[in-house]
Amino acid sequence: MQKIVAAVIGAGRIGRLHCENLLNHIPEIDLKAVSDPFIDEKWAQSKNIEVVLKDHQAILDDPEIDVVLICSRSLSHAELIEQAAEKGKHIFCEKPVALHPLTIVSALKKVDQANVKLQVGFNRRFDPSFAAVKDNVAKGRVGDVHLVKIISRDPSPPPLDYLKESGGLFLDMTIHDFDMARFLSNSEIKEVYALGQTLVNPEIAKYDDIDTALITLTFENDAIGIIENSRQAVYGYDQRIEVFGSKGSVSAGNLTPTSVKILTDNGSTLDKPLYFFLERYKDAFIEELKSFFKSIEENTPVAVSGEDGLIPVLIGLAAKRSIELHKPVMVEEIKKEYFRLTPSPISNIK
Amino acid sequence: MQKIVAAVIGAGRIGRLHCENLLNHIPEIDLKAVSDPFIDEKWAQSKNIEVVLKDHQAILDDPEIDVVLICSRSLSHAELIEQAAEKGKHIFCEKPVALHPLTIVSALKKVDQANVKLQVGFNRRFDPSFAAVKDNVAKGRVGDVHLVKIISRDPSPPPLDYLKESGGLFLDMTIHDFDMARFLSNSEIKEVYALGQTLVNPEIAKYDDIDTALITLTFENDAIGIIENSRQAVYGYDQRIEVFGSKGSVSAGNLTPTSVKILTDNGSTLDKPLYFFLERYKDAFIEELKSFFKSIEENTPVAVSGEDGLIPVLIGLAAKRSIELHKPVMVEEIKKEYFRLTPSPISNIK
Amino acid sequence: MQKIVAAVIGAGRIGRLHCENLLNHIPEIDLKAVSDPFIDEKWAQSKNIEVVLKDHQAILDDPEIDVVLICSRSLSHAELIEQAAEKGKHIFCEKPVALHPLTIVSALKKVDQANVKLQVGFNRRFDPSFAAVKDNVAKGRVGDVHLVKIISRDPSPPPLDYLKESGGLFLDMTIHDFDMARFLSNSEIKEVYALGQTLVNPEIAKYDDIDTALITLTFENDAIGIIENSRQAVYGYDQRIEVFGSKGSVSAGNLTPTSVKILTDNGSTLDKPLYFFLERYKDAFIEELKSFFKSIEENTPVAVSGEDGLIPVLIGLAAKRSIELHKPVMVEEIKKEYFRLTPSPISNIK
Amino acid sequence: MQKIVAAVIGAGRIGRLHCENLLNHIPEIDLKAVSDPFIDEKWAQSKNIEVVLKDHQAILDDPEIDVVLICSRSLSHAELIEQAAEKGKHIFCEKPVALHPLTIVSALKKVDQANVKLQVGFNRRFDPSFAAVKDNVAKGRVGDVHLVKIISRDPSPPPLDYLKESGGLFLDMTIHDFDMARFLSNSEIKEVYALGQTLVNPEIAKYDDIDTALITLTFENDAIGIIENSRQAVYGYDQRIEVFGSKGSVSAGNLTPTSVKILTDNGSTLDKPLYFFLERYKDAFIEELKSFFKSIEENTPVAVSGEDGLIPVLIGLAAKRSIELHKPVMVEEIKKEYFRLTPSPISNIK
Repeated sequence: MQKIVAAVIGAGRIGRLHCENLLNHIPEIDLKAVSDPFIDEKWAQSKNIEVVLKDHQAILDDPEIDVVLICSRSLSHAELIEQAAEKGKHIFCEKPVALHPLTIVSALKKVDQANVKLQVGFNRRFDPSFAAVKDNVAKGRVGDVHLVKIISRDPSPPPLDYLKESGGLFLDMTIHDFDMARFLSNSEIKEVYALGQTLVNPEIAKYDDIDTALITLTFENDAIGIIENSRQAVYGYDQRIEVFGSKGSVSAGNLTPTSVKILTDNGSTLDKPLYFFLERYKDAFIEELKSFFKSIEENTPVAVSGEDGLIPVLIGLAAKRSIELHKPVMVEEIKKEYFRLTPSPISNIK
Repeated sequence: MQKIVAAVIGAGRIGRLHCENLLNHIPEIDLKAVSDPFIDEKWAQSKNIEVVLKDHQAILDDPEIDVVLICSRSLSHAELIEQAAEKGKHIFCEKPVALHPLTIVSALKKVDQANVKLQVGFNRRFDPSFAAVKDNVAKGRVGDVHLVKIISRDPSPPPLDYLKESGGLFLDMTIHDFDMARFLSNSEIKEVYALGQTLVNPEIAKYDDIDTALITLTFENDAIGIIENSRQAVYGYDQRIEVFGSKGSVSAGNLTPTSVKILTDNGSTLDKPLYFFLERYKDAFIEELKSFFKSIEENTPVAVSGEDGLIPVLIGLAAKRSIELHKPVMVEEIKKEYFRLTPSPISNIK
Repeated sequence: MQKIVAAVIGAGRIGRLHCENLLNHIPEIDLKAVSDPFIDEKWAQSKNIEVVLKDHQAILDDPEIDVVLICSRSLSHAELIEQAAEKGKHIFCEKPVALHPLTIVSALKKVDQANVKLQVGFNRRFDPSFAAVKDNVAKGRVGDVHLVKIISRDPSPPPLDYLKESGGLFLDMTIHDFDMARFLSNSEIKEVYALGQTLVNPEIAKYDDIDTALITLTFENDAIGIIENSRQAVYGYDQRIEVFGSKGSVSAGNLTPTSVKILTDNGSTLDKPLYFFLERYKDAFIEELKSFFKSIEENTPVAVSGEDGLIPVLIGLAAKRSIELHKPVMVEEIKKEYFRLTPSPISNIK
Repeated sequence: MQKIVAAVIGAGRIGRLHCENLLNHIPEIDLKAVSDPFIDEKWAQSKNIEVVLKDHQAILDDPEIDVVLICSRSLSHAELIEQAAEKGKHIFCEKPVALHPLTIVSALKKVDQANVKLQVGFNRRFDPSFAAVKDNVAKGRVGDVHLVKIISRDPSPPPLDYLKESGGLFLDMTIHDFDMARFLSNSEIKEVYALGQTLVNPEIAKYDDIDTALITLTFENDAIGIIENSRQAVYGYDQRIEVFGSKGSVSAGNLTPTSVKILTDNGSTLDKPLYFFLERYKDAFIEELKSFFKSIEENTPVAVSGEDGLIPVLIGLAAKRSIELHKPVMVEEIKKEYFRLTPSPISNIK
């Protein structure tokens, strides 16, 4: 069998990470090209990547390339998906697909018509601890699910400049947690109620954004959920989940760099959690690519579909609306607003 | 100095516990009498309690008795407070003072007029772990408080019969958590949004009650809070708190009967949490009485005031209203409804 | 049934503790008298103990008293056992029975002749965590025992004056660990090799004693064991055990005053272990008395026999000899030296 | 600067691991060649290694190759070191250098004469948790070292065939722990007393070997140490260390594949430790190579010297002798026996 040939569009932090994971951990894939308007040539050379470009067009035009990984800035994702789909390439796209649902649906339709694979970069599903929680829930170890809890706190807020384009806390940060809530519960989110504050940095309010949030969820299966977000946990990246049900609880806590414990007359001290997502989800980033390439090789459904990319955006918009109206909001309401019809077109997208 | 003479009204589970704690752990107090319509004579004899009664009137009439501990059924608390206050006795009263705010205020006024001490039985404030969390928060170890989290799950639901008189989950169970939220944050709760389900036992719905709840809180200092309740954690009493702020997080986890760890090829197994409140709050029940008697001896304010007994009821009623209206409810709204005036009379009560 | 009447001889720290545990936790026993040359009268009065004496003779002469608890200084234990046995009283005796094996055997013979119960105060067997480890071992949860590990570190060394009479580290401190090793393994210790240093305080060497030790054990069932001792763990009382075998490991760790965890940018901090034996073994001290009185009431063998008091002294002497000779020493060797015959008279003592 | 060119001799489990770590994690080194009599050609091709050989001679003869990593069977190590040194190549050699001290010294002399670097593969020094323990000890966080503890248990014994060539438990398995004891204490081991049993598999005794051991250590700085070994911990690879001193304790526990915790009415269950050394020391294997190549590039002393390869063999032989004689044995005794002179030639080796 011939090697799958891949290219990476966008070589910022996450694009370079995917390149390195392909080279070091998935050697059966041939990484042929990488493009970025501000490509770090020295880095690319050190990696021995054959084709190094400033513009991605040559990647899309190269018939040898089977797969593109879209890691460019968020606002370009949807258009690149459409272009890549038209060229018949399989697509791995970082989240979010787009901030506007209709833009996403348009892209997903192109993917559907082109009959290519699209996997969205919700990497946390592949974290060994979170995957084991999901697995235990799926096997019924906690019985019927009553409550899904997600704690998700960043070590420090992003630059204010970044926030302008980010779509706000719910679409930038919580979107991962909405995905995790769906993943863990195996049920759709029906309604959200969100509470938001700017407690970390009052400047954030100027961008019409928040830095601290609680989002209450009601699932279609009557379970309830709670997501806690903060842009700043001074002790590091705090990523914990718990699923509680009729037979018990399964949870995953933080990981630490070492297992060292120091006992002195001041008490017992342990390491802080791993610093941020690159450390915490190091293995998850590798596993998501492995899973994606496996689904291409075996022609099976991807683990995180285009629909999985759309729904968290709808939930995020519902959360934003909930803040504005200061009341709970049905996700269906948002869906109808955008699609003006029921059932929504989402169910047509595979 | 003469010994303080105390009597206990109501000798059910909690009344007997207080008697035994007085006898075993606070020997400087003279427990003279106990009353209960269904008093267990054998138990009372074995404890060498001087006066054992079916009716509490003789306790109220006894001029030697300085202090009464009201441990009778909830509906009788307020009236007993009024009677004891009239007789000039200091009062320790189990929660709730009453289910109706006006009834509470009326009782508190009598206490105020009689110039006696009243302490309400929010025992969890005296739990060594929770008290240490509060202490760390008060000392600024977590900086400004951003988030208060309370997980409170019972091992199994009470009998359905009990639920009828209980006032519902929020006034029966969450009331402790509302108190804890105020205690930890050192701020008042401004608004609540509650989500409730009957996931444990559908029969509970017949009593217009719920068994699973999430309550979102907004504090006056802009911090936010979340309380999670379940009537059934099959693995035992789950009581965890966390306060998260600008400088970090302080939390208290569950306690286990032993520190035993078993490692086999099936994994590593630890004990379940302590079974229920008698085990978990064993020391807290002793400490709350010690604190109460100390404030009598030294004529200092009690640790849990009458107002501390009233406010959680108002919050509980706001949570109930939130469920009915399916939207967030201001606690002030409930207060105004009951008191038809602003500021509420609460501020007059010390 | 009539109440068992008890008296406590010796009202130092441990004698007072036993008095209070009797009064507060074992009310079915009648504590009639307490004696101590330096009795704290105020304390005794506050406890309402009927008879308070400077001399113990009246206790031994009182026909109403069924049981004596010997808590006087170590050197008086054996003689008091003999006197109490002659008076037909059941005996609870703090460890050590005596420092010299022949003295112990003589006392045990008197107990045997008088046909009274004697329980030795190896309280740690009753610690809930250690008892659970033993129980798991006994139930075969770790399979065949390969290794028994005991870590036993005091928070700080006793006064140098105390050390003079103590019999040295092995007979004063390790004696508890020798008992624990026998208890956990359910096998006798055949041979010991001991390594000792004075690393905490060089003054201790002047008393021909050590403050840091490792004792290697060989059991009759071929399992091996290791005891680690230090007179000074600055972070508190460190008491951990592990039993490792063909099917896994069962261990018990330290206990902490609270379950509080503080997470800041300096790391994650937990409580230190409980400070010393009064805190760590609080429940064990109650349980050992309950067990003792139960064996009197039900006329069953005591949980810690006179032989259990003798054997650790022989092991301790073997450990001392091992240090002197700098080689492993058989416990049997010590036994033979003292008893000049085989089998030793111990097997005659029940 | 030109790239360092390396070759790996021996492509069994550990040789392949080093190849992959070089390719994936140390891309600045050029891995030119690999040799093994039973080379897995398919594997070598998939890694794009330029030169793939059955015999190592061509590697030694290739002037382009700067560095060899010796990963062949243990008995060939010393001779290969000598040959490589003669060719002027820097050498990384898996442990043990040899089982016989004179063989090691001979090899070390060649290395010395050739003025090349030699690093011995004591990978555990580079484990992040163990390195952090060492670092804390070095910084004085535990004050003066009183006790060094090493628990080292394999998940299951190697094949009996392997044991024949292994040199026995002390030279095959404990050798790592002897190195760790020296590393952590920063002091030399003066004397050992060893206790050994065959409790896991009686067949092992036929090979004059043991499967369960306790080794007591005395350090030159008067600290004491204890190493516990078992060939079979059914729950996985158990690798724990603790250094205890005048100011406290620093320890490193096991690592688990996930942070998942399951709470049911059967208790609380956590993951088992990582299965074996490839999982547990995954990062350590990478770090040791990085450190080695850095010392070549910067011409600084290697982190694990030839002398560090010799001394644990002497300690292992002392432990063997201790078992035979059933008494403590001075390491100096063994040294003198082999070298017939004092001071030993070791001090001449850098």
